[in-house]
Amino acid sequence: MTLSPIRSLLPFARKAKKEGRNVFHLNIGQPDIPTPPQAMEAIRAVKDRIISYGPSEGLPSLRALVAQYFNKFDAHVTADDIYVTTGASEAILFTLFATCDVGDEVIIPEPFYANYLGFAETSSIKIVPITTHIEEAFGLPSPEAFEQLITPRTRAIMLCNPGNPTGQLYSADQLKKILDLCKRHNLFMVVDEVYREFCYDTNFTSILSVEGGEDHVIVIDSISKVFSSCGARIGYLITKNEDIRNTVLKYAQLRLCPPYLGQVLAEACYRYGHDYIEEAKIEYAKRREVLYSGLNSIDGIKAYKPTAAFYNIVELPVPNATEFCKWMLSDFNHNGNTVMLAPAGGFYFSEHVGASQVRIAYILNENHLQQALECLQVGLKQYHKMVLQPAT
Amino acid sequence: MTLSPIRSLLPFARKAKKEGRNVFHLNIGQPDIPTPPQAMEAIRAVKDRIISYGPSEGLPSLRALVAQYFNKFDAHVTADDIYVTTGASEAILFTLFATCDVGDEVIIPEPFYANYLGFAETSSIKIVPITTHIEEAFGLPSPEAFEQLITPRTRAIMLCNPGNPTGQLYSADQLKKILDLCKRHNLFMVVDEVYREFCYDTNFTSILSVEGGEDHVIVIDSISKVFSSCGARIGYLITKNEDIRNTVLKYAQLRLCPPYLGQVLAEACYRYGHDYIEEAKIEYAKRREVLYSGLNSIDGIKAYKPTAAFYNIVELPVPNATEFCKWMLSDFNHNGNTVMLAPAGGFYFSEHVGASQVRIAYILNENHLQQALECLQVGLKQYHKMVLQPAT
Repeated sequence: MTLSPIRSLLPFARKAKKEGRNVFHLNIGQPDIPTPPQAMEAIRAVKDRIISYGPSEGLPSLRALVAQYFNKFDAHVTADDIYVTTGASEAILFTLFATCDVGDEVIIPEPFYANYLGFAETSSIKIVPITTHIEEAFGLPSPEAFEQLITPRTRAIMLCNPGNPTGQLYSADQLKKILDLCKRHNLFMVVDEVYREFCYDTNFTSILSVEGGEDHVIVIDSISKVFSSCGARIGYLITKNEDIRNTVLKYAQLRLCPPYLGQVLAEACYRYGHDYIEEAKIEYAKRREVLYSGLNSIDGIKAYKPTAAFYNIVELPVPNATEFCKWMLSDFNHNGNTVMLAPAGGFYFSEHVGASQVRIAYILNENHLQQALECLQVGLKQYHKMVLQPAT
Repeated sequence: MTLSPIRSLLPFARKAKKEGRNVFHLNIGQPDIPTPPQAMEAIRAVKDRIISYGPSEGLPSLRALVAQYFNKFDAHVTADDIYVTTGASEAILFTLFATCDVGDEVIIPEPFYANYLGFAETSSIKIVPITTHIEEAFGLPSPEAFEQLITPRTRAIMLCNPGNPTGQLYSADQLKKILDLCKRHNLFMVVDEVYREFCYDTNFTSILSVEGGEDHVIVIDSISKVFSSCGARIGYLITKNEDIRNTVLKYAQLRLCPPYLGQVLAEACYRYGHDYIEEAKIEYAKRREVLYSGLNSIDGIKAYKPTAAFYNIVELPVPNATEFCKWMLSDFNHNGNTVMLAPAGGFYFSEHVGASQVRIAYILNENHLQQALECLQVGLKQYHKMVLQPAT
């Protein structure tokens, strides 16, 4: 098992804080937006005398609310199609266990959410990456490019839409073509849609709204980002394929049930969260502008404007982003501040790709984001002077 | 993946309830004792604005409280030795992933907690059972008997102490001998101690209190039973072996963190739960007496008095306990009541063993337990008359 690349710099950040410096965390997708207050109120109103086991599939009341929520995306799912999981993490793991045998292959565009690699290692399946490029804002490769990678062991194509770590959004047309490909080759199409609510320029298309995908489509979802409730550990696995549901149920029964209190929180999120989501989206859209204009004013940075989620992959004018990120935490101080970024190499399966890139999560408010960008600008200048081209 | 045997009779129970009959559930370890009121109070007092990701290892404050709690058992563990997991289920899975490669072997006395089998299938490891017998109240086999099963692929011996489903308790001397065996053969000794607080006749020995086990011992724990908080999904993996901790950390980081609200509940359990545990134990001890005397008054039943936990394996005068359990749910009605039991066959890895046995969980109050036993007595009589020896 490899160590989570996002978390491997944490000891350096801890040291920086111990030394009294403030660290702006642009490295992790932990929003600073409050959890819906009505959801916190629901927790404070819990009346149960016993926190007992619930159904392995999740609370029926929550599953019904999630099904209703999906109407918004023209996705015709029922409560039966939805299993509550312990975060999207568990939904991904259940999906791999249910669709693949040991040694089977899943095609995934890279860069991808780094933990996909750990889930693949845990379930002993093989990731087949298809590289996307910063010059194309990490747009989706053609169906033909995917098709070339299909082997007799391929079981699924897996997409993250909107994309973590890229902030890209796939169109209805693109999704339909990949679904057609999956149908032709009898593959599953797994789409991780946990950032679906944050699309700034064009509308989001859920793969669940695309007709004819019933037997092939598995959607991963979560309340972590949409409702800023990462610690509740509530996610979903959604599919109309009954065989997959029956297999997933066995894994679900094995861990007995998802966390009860998180489910109570989630129910209130869906009941009261409509305006909340709109407000959060407006806030992230503002931050996106701050980030984009800030990055554009820094010399040597290659950036595109992400269309969705709250991530951006950025190419820095340094040969090794990991070394630069470490240096920022160990040796840099700008008015008592520094910034933590996620080196993007860990999001690529292929080696030696993205070595100069970092992922920036725009999850801080405008003021902090601006200060963090200033740190990055000053840091890059100092790094060039002191490390890359030190005075002789 | 096999279907959880405890849960496979549930559709029959649902049907019975739909038909208006009351079902006494003696089949599942869901206590009817309230969660500590102070813990529920802690949930209602949650002040956080954001339910955010916590440390993958669990909250430091909770880990410190658990370490302190273990002093009670002369187990010298520190907060660093304790990882918070999403229920004991996750702790078991992490243990198997961290100690075994695909195809490695773990020796486990049977009957054992049925989900061990699912965890073994998930991690592609092989369970090597060592059969224990109702005539000996499922006492622990000799170290020599374990030793005969050790092969070059054996990685661990796994015990459940106190035992689910047997209600047996292993002595300090027995544990020491198995630990010595593990040390001689360089094996891990995994002990699932989630029922440790419920020992009625003799004191409990935690394997963590046995000297010299530092590199070999891994303990599984949970608040589910001790604090009647099954739905909180909070468990622990405890070990002083740093290599194992480092490997487990990678799996822990992969699923980001354990549920936050469950951890808040757990903290209050340890802060305020000392008297609570004593009272729960007195209650279960009373129920044990009711169960034992009730079973002894039923013709043809073979029962022993369990010494710990809240389970009892009982041999019924029927050739196939699964058929009998189904019949009780489908065709039996005693004053509007029936009873659900867990057929014990699912707790044995070996086939055709324990076919006449059931597991009874004494998790109902005395009054309900007495009514359930009456159902069992009347049910067995009717079953003999109507099914086994029907009038010709």
